[in-house]
Amino acid sequence: MSVEIERKFLVLNNDYQQTAQRKTRIVQGYLNSSPERTVRIRIRGQQGYLTIKGKSSQDGTSRYEWEKEIDLSEAQQLIKLCEPGLIDKIRYEVSVGQHTFEVDEFFAENQDLVVAEVELSSADDAFEKPDWLGEEVTGDKRYYNSCLMKHPFNQWIN
Amino acid sequence: MSVEIERKFLVLNNDYQQTAQRKTRIVQGYLNSSPERTVRIRIRGQQGYLTIKGKSSQDGTSRYEWEKEIDLSEAQQLIKLCEPGLIDKIRYEVSVGQHTFEVDEFFAENQDLVVAEVELSSADDAFEKPDWLGEEVTGDKRYYNSCLMKHPFNQWIN
Repeated sequence: MSVEIERKFLVLNNDYQQTAQRKTRIVQGYLNSSPERTVRIRIRGQQGYLTIKGKSSQDGTSRYEWEKEIDLSEAQQLIKLCEPGLIDKIRYEVSVGQHTFEVDEFFAENQDLVVAEVELSSADDAFEKPDWLGEEVTGDKRYYNSCLMKHPFNQWIN
Repeated sequence: MSVEIERKFLVLNNDYQQTAQRKTRIVQGYLNSSPERTVRIRIRGQQGYLTIKGKSSQDGTSRYEWEKEIDLSEAQQLIKLCEPGLIDKIRYEVSVGQHTFEVDEFFAENQDLVVAEVELSSADDAFEKPDWLGEEVTGDKRYYNSCLMKHPFNQWIN
């Protein structure tokens, strides 16, 4: 179990696609979508993952996380037990300076939402901001994947 | 992932203790206690387990189950994230004919409750009933460990 320190941003345009090193389809569901004890089943390419996260720190930047790789066939069975509503997205991994941004383009009911996340070694770790990086939304629960499942982007009132 | 076929019984006296092959302390909590997608963290002796169960069949005898051994230290961390209320019990394993009964003596708020379970290879698998075996409670959700956590035996109105 480790503490995950992440900052999350909206994205201004799709320039990140040109410098992405990797592009992967991700489908995930939740055995518990509560922010206090999130249990996630993820299929990423041909690999399955089971991830458990505790509740976020007060400033929203750090969170306990425990993850295990599981067989694809097991993940496919477990995803059937998940709460209604799956998240379906393409993730781009984009190196910027010393860090890697994960940029998620969402589909289905979250179509048109694009979010970038960077993992840091400490809460005050400095990082280079690419031109395509927009408004910070760290700690805004609406952008949690576990919330997007129940309150998808297409139903938000802008 | 396998299908678990189990029948559950109350227990008339403690004669099972005399023929038990094994006795282990079990502490467990739930990352999700919903019967549709139960996620359980269990510490059994010095070993940790993560178990996911789907909802029961209509007659209450079979249920999808997926289990992985995890490190004790990881289980100790994950149990801290669980829903309020832990289950604490001693399990006796008792061979009777071709089958093994698991007899659970509960502590804390479930003190005085003793339940025996036998795992079968099919729903109509015959098994020998020892003298100490009482009323069958298979499918009675009150006896689910995930329910005993929220509605403990000491609070039941008899």
